Amino acid sequence: MKLLRVGTSGAERPALLDAEGTLRDLSGVVSDIDGTVLADAAALDRIRAAAEAGDLPVLDASGLRVGPPVGRIGKVVCIGLNYHDHARETGAEPPAEPVVFFKAADTVVGPDDTVLVPRRSVKTDWEVELAVVIGRTARYLESQEEALAHVAGYAVAHDVSEREFQIERGGTWDKGKNCETFNPLGPWLVTADEVADPQALSLKLWVNGELKQDGTTAEQIFPVAEVVRYVSQFMTLHPGDVINTGTPAGVAMGQPEPKPYLRAGDVVELEIEGLGRQRQELKDA
Amino acid sequence: MKLLRVGTSGAERPALLDAEGTLRDLSGVVSDIDGTVLADAAALDRIRAAAEAGDLPVLDASGLRVGPPVGRIGKVVCIGLNYHDHARETGAEPPAEPVVFFKAADTVVGPDDTVLVPRRSVKTDWEVELAVVIGRTARYLESQEEALAHVAGYAVAHDVSEREFQIERGGTWDKGKNCETFNPLGPWLVTADEVADPQALSLKLWVNGELKQDGTTAEQIFPVAEVVRYVSQFMTLHPGDVINTGTPAGVAMGQPEPKPYLRAGDVVELEIEGLGRQRQELKDA
Repeated sequence: MKLLRVGTSGAERPALLDAEGTLRDLSGVVSDIDGTVLADAAALDRIRAAAEAGDLPVLDASGLRVGPPVGRIGKVVCIGLNYHDHARETGAEPPAEPVVFFKAADTVVGPDDTVLVPRRSVKTDWEVELAVVIGRTARYLESQEEALAHVAGYAVAHDVSEREFQIERGGTWDKGKNCETFNPLGPWLVTADEVADPQALSLKLWVNGELKQDGTTAEQIFPVAEVVRYVSQFMTLHPGDVINTGTPAGVAMGQPEPKPYLRAGDVVELEIEGLGRQRQELKDA
Repeated sequence: MKLLRVGTSGAERPALLDAEGTLRDLSGVVSDIDGTVLADAAALDRIRAAAEAGDLPVLDASGLRVGPPVGRIGKVVCIGLNYHDHARETGAEPPAEPVVFFKAADTVVGPDDTVLVPRRSVKTDWEVELAVVIGRTARYLESQEEALAHVAGYAVAHDVSEREFQIERGGTWDKGKNCETFNPLGPWLVTADEVADPQALSLKLWVNGELKQDGTTAEQIFPVAEVVRYVSQFMTLHPGDVINTGTPAGVAMGQPEPKPYLRAGDVVELEIEGLGRQRQELKDA
């Protein structure tokens, strides 16, 4: 299923995009798409049954904002340098084990919301990423098979990054990863049963219409199953938590000088095979 | 005022510790102590008026668990290496600007809750810290005075840290900072009006009754006001967000070999002048 949340920020209602591409209202079935619902097999079954029975009212999509597809996100765990081609372009050795950093949940916005270039930013960069949404509480998972059973679904994430804040201002990367609006997510949460192989998805990102990233999750150094298993050794993952699994080659930081960092007025579009498309205009904060 | 939350985990009710040390029930005045209430001057005035009028029912404190003093915490921002004496003991240069990392809000537990030693941990360490709780949305604050006006209050935090996960496993520090139960907070949120000078507080921590940390916030490299101002240049701080402002000297990592890292059965106690005392037993995860 393609689950999503539509409406103004903070007041989104749950919805479903059906097999015919029609938007359906889910608010008669569940109150939101969030960790509580994703962890509730019976609630997901009710959604599926209502969709198959044609019981869900059509929603008029015109003019409707799409929000992030998960409400009440607890945390956003991010994996750095997780694509062979991206590690090469940054000059870094492929890491021996996953590199973990965080984005605050309050950085998450809808897939087509404005992205703000932070004040005093000179190196705002793009990163298309496959986001994994957790569906079951995960602690010390023992195998990759067990890890995949804890995944509710997948979505497109834009891990917007300010490289000067991230790398040149001391301390950890988090300083350049948590600026306001820095994590567009969506449009949909595609449930895991509809993603046959998370390691065979193409990812693309365009800036002002020009293709900048054109990768595949087959290039991931640590596949989704290993990332989920690994992260669960260090922290507890809760339903509704999100893991951004890294970005392929093609970011601004990896280009020749002068590097084409983002500025107000730029338009970024992102797409992952089967998971939908995002479009953000940049504005000054 | 000393605000707190008492009851079982996830079902805490708001309370107040009055000037006589009597626990009072606040659930008739506000539904919780959280960002919404902390940002609402009228709500805080109602609490103050009810306390002064003697209108608040006494709560029987016996056997009552104390939870973290803030509900629905959005994010926990942490400042690393922020005490001259702690920077010296780790062998690090004092940073030129604040070092920022994150703890997920789901690591926050009550001040006397069990702390879990993670599986495969060999270097679980302690850190007593002054926590700042945000009361007003803070973006790009221009001065330290303005920054202090965005602080709702202060609390004791225990920034439990696994040094091998933090430092020796690649990537950022976050891997060693986000294990389950790694952020005891409380017992109280002491409102900012009752903390005359946040740079003149003594901090102490004992392990199994032995004093290990005995510091003062006067040793902070970046004082609270500068930390809040600085962090707001990189991310938006929301009411109910928490900033752990760093730890003084005396952590296990800074001791001679064999370093006395924590193990199941150890008891850690922490105290900050005027902000109360914590006590945690360690158990294996």
